[in-house]
Amino acid sequence: MINAAILGFGVVGAGTAEVLHMNSDKITDVLGEELRVKKILDIRDFPDSPFADLVTHNADDVFEDPDISIVVETIGGARIAYEYTKLALSKGKSVVTSNKELVSTHGVELMAIAEMNGCCYLYEAAVGGGIPIIRPLHRCLAANRIEKIAGIVNGTTNYILTNMRTAGISYEEAIKQAQAKGYAEQNPAADVDGIDAQRKLSIMSSICLGGLYVAPSEIHTTGITALTNDDVEFASAIDCSIKLLAVFDNPEDGKPSAFVAPHMVRKTALLASVEDVFNAIVVVGNALGEAMFYGRGAGKLPTASAVAGDVLEVAKAHGKDTGFKNWHAAEDGARVTAEYGSIVTKAVIKAPAGKLNDLKTAFASYDVETAVDNDKYAAIFVRGISHDDIKKICDGNYSWFNLYE
Amino acid sequence: MINAAILGFGVVGAGTAEVLHMNSDKITDVLGEELRVKKILDIRDFPDSPFADLVTHNADDVFEDPDISIVVETIGGARIAYEYTKLALSKGKSVVTSNKELVSTHGVELMAIAEMNGCCYLYEAAVGGGIPIIRPLHRCLAANRIEKIAGIVNGTTNYILTNMRTAGISYEEAIKQAQAKGYAEQNPAADVDGIDAQRKLSIMSSICLGGLYVAPSEIHTTGITALTNDDVEFASAIDCSIKLLAVFDNPEDGKPSAFVAPHMVRKTALLASVEDVFNAIVVVGNALGEAMFYGRGAGKLPTASAVAGDVLEVAKAHGKDTGFKNWHAAEDGARVTAEYGSIVTKAVIKAPAGKLNDLKTAFASYDVETAVDNDKYAAIFVRGISHDDIKKICDGNYSWFNLYE
Repeated sequence: MINAAILGFGVVGAGTAEVLHMNSDKITDVLGEELRVKKILDIRDFPDSPFADLVTHNADDVFEDPDISIVVETIGGARIAYEYTKLALSKGKSVVTSNKELVSTHGVELMAIAEMNGCCYLYEAAVGGGIPIIRPLHRCLAANRIEKIAGIVNGTTNYILTNMRTAGISYEEAIKQAQAKGYAEQNPAADVDGIDAQRKLSIMSSICLGGLYVAPSEIHTTGITALTNDDVEFASAIDCSIKLLAVFDNPEDGKPSAFVAPHMVRKTALLASVEDVFNAIVVVGNALGEAMFYGRGAGKLPTASAVAGDVLEVAKAHGKDTGFKNWHAAEDGARVTAEYGSIVTKAVIKAPAGKLNDLKTAFASYDVETAVDNDKYAAIFVRGISHDDIKKICDGNYSWFNLYE
Repeated sequence: MINAAILGFGVVGAGTAEVLHMNSDKITDVLGEELRVKKILDIRDFPDSPFADLVTHNADDVFEDPDISIVVETIGGARIAYEYTKLALSKGKSVVTSNKELVSTHGVELMAIAEMNGCCYLYEAAVGGGIPIIRPLHRCLAANRIEKIAGIVNGTTNYILTNMRTAGISYEEAIKQAQAKGYAEQNPAADVDGIDAQRKLSIMSSICLGGLYVAPSEIHTTGITALTNDDVEFASAIDCSIKLLAVFDNPEDGKPSAFVAPHMVRKTALLASVEDVFNAIVVVGNALGEAMFYGRGAGKLPTASAVAGDVLEVAKAHGKDTGFKNWHAAEDGARVTAEYGSIVTKAVIKAPAGKLNDLKTAFASYDVETAVDNDKYAAIFVRGISHDDIKKICDGNYSWFNLYE
């Protein structure tokens, strides 16, 4: 019998209890022994939950119980969750989490504490919800040098952008609908400002660099709040869809880079077909080539599926090495990735109708292709240009977008 | 220092040597020690290969060398590969393979021999080439009951079908082009008859059933050889693409089923956008919901990427449990899955123009929707009908296809 505890009985915590219960036969079969949730720690009571009897308000019931070897942290945030995670790990209890804020902020420290105490800190559910991505990056693609990642990693913003296009509604209206459907929080800032995507990109980038920690604070992030219906219409005119992408790039002969920004995604790219609340992450490995992982990036049971998968991993490992490499900060505390302005990228430059030649002249020293030239817009695709140079040329004259193709 | 040997220096074997060499820095970092290919066993010589010095024709150099703890089997087929795999495992050497024929035919026995000798038999590369799918099914989705799998798992046939549509060429011409590009063998039977897909589905089904072995022989398989340009044109008329799908279904209240057949895939399904030699596998878990894994299903380096990933897994495990469940045959030797005829499915029924009412009358007792009614075709989508009943009603009157949506 393996005993687990759940900290925080919100959506994901409750989903985890449900998945572990619903699939207990299969789980016993996989583990060769029973796994049970012994305690659920929350400040609230849940009298109507089938798990009501397991709820405790006393942290000692979890942390002082030597029978509990696995702790699921689904509290969220980086305050209480941080303290409880440190406490659990320091007592040799492995911790499984869906908390991207905590992992991306304190991952280096927490993984070190886990290692010191012979237990694990796993976070598959922190990126891509139910989509297996963290373990594939660590394990299946272990023999690859990961050259690039481009992901739609926030379902809320993808739902808003999809809805603006298909229903022709404004950004404000789309937010309201997303809130009504439960896809967006009452304060949607972390999603629409790109902070959630930034945290997830911090986690993926750190893994891809073999554990060299890329802090969220060094990831330039632009959200979707400034996007208009004209931008959406313009995207269609150039055969693109607007998507908020988290992009990591690790050229063999240059500095790695990571940023989050709205992109014009060409319709020929599979990412353009990823709609509504779905997530998808494209990974390019030097042996693998391009692969894509697609699925539900959030939601009660999908996220719980990933948490429960990690719980089983820990239960099987019994504190032994799970093959995940710990993170470490850069020695001199310097930033690991290139400054946003210096990143060489692809872009779409947009001008009013009739201005195509002006655009071509302004960008004459770059690789330029006409994107559209009709009675409403003139636009070009520009490749091999730095963000700084785009800004310098566009400033006050043209608007522009990052391009993914 | 961990020593590996490669058996069979063909495309995948050579690719594996190349990947392990090319990414040796990263691999040493992951493992904490060096991994080297010590011997390559082949009956041929490769004087121009950078690995020429490692080639031996003497099997004892591999099997009698106690330093070699990992054997990569990339011979293919189920004869010599079978003997060598048994020999390696019986000596406690873990075996990593890309050989779907061997795994799907002798997996039960080989996994048992591995367990008995405290080593591993891993086969990530046998399905989906470079796409991580075997390990995610085992590990990341361990807490899920897998309800359904639908996959484009054969790149050759997908290339042929894509090319017939986009270039408007015949099946015979498309085969020739695939051969010229190296995507199809001179004898393409295993691909175009669906045998390769059948083997891969046998492997995935056996994993999804917790190790209960689904033999290839019980998987009803129809290839693509009978498909015509009219079928391709008809597909467009009903907003579908023709794809060869491997389908596993495990309803909670019925018998599991598995079959391989061409499907009309509705354009709204992501699988319809998987073109050329790419593979994609949709997995539906009872907690996860729908996820998709996409990438290069074949090719030297992508397949080698998966082989090398398994080599690292084995190297880290040092013969300990890798969390993969061994297979076992059904006790009474009976088939595990439902007979093809009894499988309840969805279909498209096709008739000449003007015959829509005849179709609707013939299928009146089923859930029917008009697919097309123009001057060339009449067709309906029928849902909740068994293959036997489709055949009974269509026989001699209408042609039909499986439907995926």
